[in-house]
Formats: sequence, structure tokens, C-alpha cells
Amino acid sequence: MSNLRDDSLQMHKSKQGKLTIESKVPIHNARDLSLAYSPGVAEPCKEIHDQKEKVYDYTMKGNMVAVVSDGSAVLGLGNIGPEAALPVMEGKSVLFKSFAGVDSFPICLDTHDIEEIVRTVKLMEPTFGGVNLEDIAAPNCFIIEEKLKKETNIPIFHDDQHGTAIVTVAGLINALKVVGKSFSDIRVVANGAGAAGIAIIKLLHSFGVREMIMCDSKGAIFDGRPYGMNDVKDRVAKITNKDRKEGSLEEVLEGADVFIGVSVGGLLSKEMVERMNTDPIIFAMANPDPEIMPDEAKEAGAKVIGTGRSDFPNQVNNVLAFPGIFRGALDVRATRINERMKIAAARAIASLVSEDDLNEDYVIPAPFDARVAPIVAKSVAQAAMETGVARIEVDPEAVAEKTRSLTRIDS
Amino acid sequence: MSNLRDDSLQMHKSKQGKLTIESKVPIHNARDLSLAYSPGVAEPCKEIHDQKEKVYDYTMKGNMVAVVSDGSAVLGLGNIGPEAALPVMEGKSVLFKSFAGVDSFPICLDTHDIEEIVRTVKLMEPTFGGVNLEDIAAPNCFIIEEKLKKETNIPIFHDDQHGTAIVTVAGLINALKVVGKSFSDIRVVANGAGAAGIAIIKLLHSFGVREMIMCDSKGAIFDGRPYGMNDVKDRVAKITNKDRKEGSLEEVLEGADVFIGVSVGGLLSKEMVERMNTDPIIFAMANPDPEIMPDEAKEAGAKVIGTGRSDFPNQVNNVLAFPGIFRGALDVRATRINERMKIAAARAIASLVSEDDLNEDYVIPAPFDARVAPIVAKSVAQAAMETGVARIEVDPEAVAEKTRSLTRIDS
Repeated sequence: MSNLRDDSLQMHKSKQGKLTIESKVPIHNARDLSLAYSPGVAEPCKEIHDQKEKVYDYTMKGNMVAVVSDGSAVLGLGNIGPEAALPVMEGKSVLFKSFAGVDSFPICLDTHDIEEIVRTVKLMEPTFGGVNLEDIAAPNCFIIEEKLKKETNIPIFHDDQHGTAIVTVAGLINALKVVGKSFSDIRVVANGAGAAGIAIIKLLHSFGVREMIMCDSKGAIFDGRPYGMNDVKDRVAKITNKDRKEGSLEEVLEGADVFIGVSVGGLLSKEMVERMNTDPIIFAMANPDPEIMPDEAKEAGAKVIGTGRSDFPNQVNNVLAFPGIFRGALDVRATRINERMKIAAARAIASLVSEDDLNEDYVIPAPFDARVAPIVAKSVAQAAMETGVARIEVDPEAVAEKTRSLTRIDS
Repeated sequence: MSNLRDDSLQMHKSKQGKLTIESKVPIHNARDLSLAYSPGVAEPCKEIHDQKEKVYDYTMKGNMVAVVSDGSAVLGLGNIGPEAALPVMEGKSVLFKSFAGVDSFPICLDTHDIEEIVRTVKLMEPTFGGVNLEDIAAPNCFIIEEKLKKETNIPIFHDDQHGTAIVTVAGLINALKVVGKSFSDIRVVANGAGAAGIAIIKLLHSFGVREMIMCDSKGAIFDGRPYGMNDVKDRVAKITNKDRKEGSLEEVLEGADVFIGVSVGGLLSKEMVERMNTDPIIFAMANPDPEIMPDEAKEAGAKVIGTGRSDFPNQVNNVLAFPGIFRGALDVRATRINERMKIAAARAIASLVSEDDLNEDYVIPAPFDARVAPIVAKSVAQAAMETGVARIEVDPEAVAEKTRSLTRIDS
């Protein structure tokens, strides 16, 4: 790890950051200048002034995503502020580009005020075709995303919520095949009521899971719980725990089919896993230490185990989702990323694990599987068109093909 | 011109804008990912969290300029809004990169409210090493720049003011040599009290010009003029027209040595030029039609004539200034661009016209003179260090050398 530490510092310092702005047009002489700048540039300006939608034809907007953070919940580092968050946001932009050819630009904001963040992003809307909210602490992240969705006409996507949820659910689709259960029959217990946990519950609800309990540090959340609630938990309580069970994680986990951990390392014991239903599925995604180590979970009878780590099977890695999702959304000039598009993304990711290859250690494609972004982009574009949030119609196969041509990773 | 129109539209459409975001680091495999993103990226984050200034070492900030506009005064097109302004701002970023290797990113804001623009830029300060304000209408541009200078610790530079002023004054330095006059002896009349005009007056004041009159559409501006004044004109009146002359442009121009036009095409007649002092100098910069056409001015006795147009001698083109100015400011991590840096830039530009080459048709270097950005960057960096606004000390020659290596234009 000390090697990684030194190498990362050295790499960041020698490059002075990871992003650079490039011109797509050469400026070698006066003619070049007159086309790209004055006086020729007046022509696209006039076209856009006449018809605002043409900004997608003549500018970078249609392929440009803002990666917006206030630095309040960065990786496992917490509230380290906007300057210190910048390396992560640049990294995110590197991934957007490398995995799906999406141009994106980091905007680290020097405020934690909800209204200020919303207003700032809203004011920048003319420049961007979409907004990826990143590393903003709960519950502000929920409110900011919700307000921005109402106030803008471009996709607003908080990756810590939805990216994690989509990849987790993709893994669960396949894990359920391994154990021969279905969404409508399972009982799910999720631990951790942060950004990711809440989004996972919501997406599972869309997938037809009816038996869910979410726990926070005070135990099971239920409608009307008189302690430790907030707006978001109130809403979660409406779609979970319909029997209003009270109790600790340990108590409510008994007999459950699926454990989803987005909480703290080491808090799931072998005994707790043993008391789950047969063939339990464990997604222990706390980082860097999972809620239970995969070998322990296995010993306790877990059938399928996923973590956030690259050194274990079934890594839940957001990079499987966000590049392709924005690629698809941008290519149809989507006004938003809706639930159907998220469901399509999860299904697309899951579909890449064939029946033949499927096994308990392979329910999620690898992060560097170059088939992922194209199929996600295609499915998201299709879902956008079907749900009426696409500004233009495109051939979904062309979206996939374009994504393939833009992806730069080695498969 | 119809050819230019079609070619520009075609170029903008086929490229879908002129800018793209590139990664400086390859992401081919898991090791690359762990360096540029999680978990390796946590290391520079922690370093910056410990010491905020290190954001310049580990991120793109040190070479990243925001090009900020509200689309209220775009080219000669007026208030066309933020979407329609985007092609111009992208073009500006293309020039920053092509002429001096400066990375910059367009931010078009959907508001004309002064406080909102100031607050938004202030909130984005963590991401940027400098801010180029562009195409914001007077008088808002003055107030916005002034407030941002007070509230931020990075260079704030409104190019429509200072870029134009610096290149105009560079031309005037050499024009005065041609006619054998000096700044301290001349009488200057400027017409047009917009962004450029005001900035030119201020910079000429720094160069020691004592006899100046500025005119607006209501004639000569003087201290206490009871009509058509505002804060900015009040301040201009304090450093100009000390005899408080009242009258039309025509009246106050009589006997003047220099006419500076940043106003409207065609309003300077041959007769008015004839009534100026001997060997008058005319900078007629209205676009696309100058205040007087060069051939007419010459017939009326003008000795040196500059315009904003590339098809006449002595083109006042901001591209001679802003790329090198920001290159120099960024390379010393300047906290601001002060008067001494602007003066240094003007002198550097003027210095490239040698005594041997100097003549009435060559007082300003050509826009594609590749010597310009390096010498401007070097001089600006030096002035920043001398005036205590540089965060780091560098070798000015190294700044020039770096700029040369980054310049992509054909000389």
C-alpha cells in the first residue's frame, strides 16, 4: 500500500492534475481563427439565439457533464472540503472519458448550503448536458438532487446513490438466479441509511421487492419511529417494514434472504449470517473493510457474497453504471434519468453474465469488461425514448456502437 | 462572407462544439484505476486537506481558467443569452490553449444578477486558478470584476476591458515613437464609455497621460456633469478632463493628438481628423465597421491608424494579450492581475516591434506572431513577483520557454 501511496502522489504531482482541455479544431492561421472565433463564431451564436435547442448541435453541451461536489463526504475521508475533493472529481472525469467517451468537468463548490448548491448548478445549466452529483453528504444530497430535478431540464444523477444501487441490484438479479429465488419472494434487510442504502431500497422497490427492512445505527426503521428519523427515513418507512417491526439489525435479520451492507466494517457476525434463511445473499459493501469478510460469510453459509473490493469476487463498482448511463442519456439529449432508465441499466449489466458463466463467484461483470458501457448506454437510451424523456430519437444500436468506439479500456 | 458563414456552421455542427476533456493518465487496467481513482486518489486528497495550497501541486487548478459569461454583450450581437454565448466562450478556450497552453473551461450563467454572478464564481474558486470574465455588459462588468477581486484569491480579468486596453496601449507606445511624441505630452480623446473605453483611459493614466477626455453619446464627460452619469463615469471624470470641458466629440477632438474609438462605425469624419493636432494617431476599433475607414483617415492626415480588423494594418486583437497574461499569472500562482502586470504586458507586446521594423503600418505585432505569448507571460510573471502577488518564485526565462513549448500556432 505504501507503494500505491507514493505512486499516486508522484503521478498526481508530475501531471499537475489529471485533466486537460483540448481543442477539437486547430488554430494555425487567420482563417482557422475566423472560423472558430470572430467573426465566424457569430453564426452558431445566432442560430442558437433563434432556437435555444440548437445549443446541442453547435456546442459541447451535448457531451458535457458537470461533476459537482461540495467535498462533504469524499470516499471514506469525510468532509475534507472542496479543494481536497478535487482529485476525486478529476478521477471521476477520467473514468467518464475512459469508459464511455463522456466529457465531464469537475466543479468543487465552496459551500455546504443546499440552496446555494442548487442555485449554482441551476445557473450553470446552459453549459452542461447533465450533472453528476458526487460525494455530497446525506441528507443534503437527497434534497439537492430532488430540487435540481424539479428546476432543470437536464439529467441530475447522484452517483453515490443511484450508481451503487444500480450495480448492487444488477448483482442481486444474478445472485437470485444462483439461489433460485425471485424478487417478489425475498426478504431484504439493508443496513446503513446513507445515500447508497436509501437508493438501493428504492430501486429494489421498483424491482418488486415487498419485504424490506432498513436499519440505521438505532436499529430497524419503521413508520412513526419516535427517534432518529428525518424526511428521507420517513419516506423509506412508507415502503418498508410494513409490520413496523422494532429491533436491532441482529433481530430483524433473522430469516432474511438478503443482507445489503452500506454501513461499517465488521458489524455482521457469522452467527447473524447463520440465522438468515437458507442460501443467504450478502452484499457487504463497507469500504475498505466489508461488514463481514467473504470467507467468514461463506463459512456461515452465505451462498453469494459481493463487496466493494477489487480483491474479492463480485465487486460492486459504480464504474459499471455511470459512464454508460450518461452516454445513453446524452445521446438522446435526455431531460432526466428516470426510474425506468435505472432499471434498464441494472438489467443490462446483469445480462452480461451468461447462464453458462453464472456462478456464486460471478454475478457481476468485471469493471474492465468493455461490453458493459455499450449495453448500458443502449438500454438507457432506449428506456429514455420509451418514457418520453428523450429530446431526439436515435437507433439504440448506434448508441452501443458509438460507445464501443469511444471506450478506451483494455478488455 | 457566406462561405465563412456556412463553413463555420458546418465546422461547429460536425464537431459538436470545439472543446473536449482529456485525461492525462491512461486507464487500461485495475492498477491504473487504483492510482487515478480509489483507493490511491485518497493520498493527494489527504495532502490537500492538510495544506490547502497543495491543491496547486496535485490538481488541474494551477492551469485551469474559468471563462465566465452571462451572454449579455456577446461580440456585436448584444444580449443573446448564455446558451447562444457558448460558441464564443468555447472559442476563447480554444485560443487560450492554442496560444499559450492554458486550460480553460466556459461557464455560461443563466442570470444577469450581479450578486448571483459574483457568488457563483466565488463558490467555484476551489476548481480554478483564474477567471476570465467575457462579454458581460457595462456597467455590470465593472462591478462584478471589482467585487470578485475583493472576494477571491485568484486572478480575475475582464478581457473586454483589460485585454483591449493592453493591446491598444501597446500599439500607442509604438505609434508615439513613429510621430515623435510622448505619453506625458499628448492629449487623448476616447469615444465610447463601455468596458474597453474605460479600461483604456485607466491604463493610459497609469502610463502617465494627463490630458484625456472621454466622450459618450452625450459628448464630453466631466466631473459633475448633470446628465447621463454613473459610478464608473464619475470615476473616469476624476482622472480626465480636468478643465471640465463641455461639448460634442467634434468640439473636444479639435487639437487632440490621439483618437481612441470603441464606439460606433462611421462617426469620425475626415473633417474631424483634419482639425486634430499634427500627425494624429487614430485607433478606430468599432467592429465590424471602424469609426473611420483607414484610407479616409490617411487622406485627412492621420499618421498611424489602428483598427480591430484583420484586413487592415495594426490590428488590435486581444489574442495578443490574454493567453500570455494568464500563462504568466498561472505560472507564479498569482493571487491577482494588477496594474503593474498589465503595464508589463503592454510593454512586452510593444517591444516585439523593433526600431528597424517600426513604421506607421506596423506598430502592433501580428496575432500569429509566436513570440508574443512567451514574452508577455515572462513579463507578467516577473511583474507579479516584483509586486508581491506571486505565490511562488520562478525563473521568468523558464516561463517564456514553457510558453514557447506550449504554443501551437504557426508563426
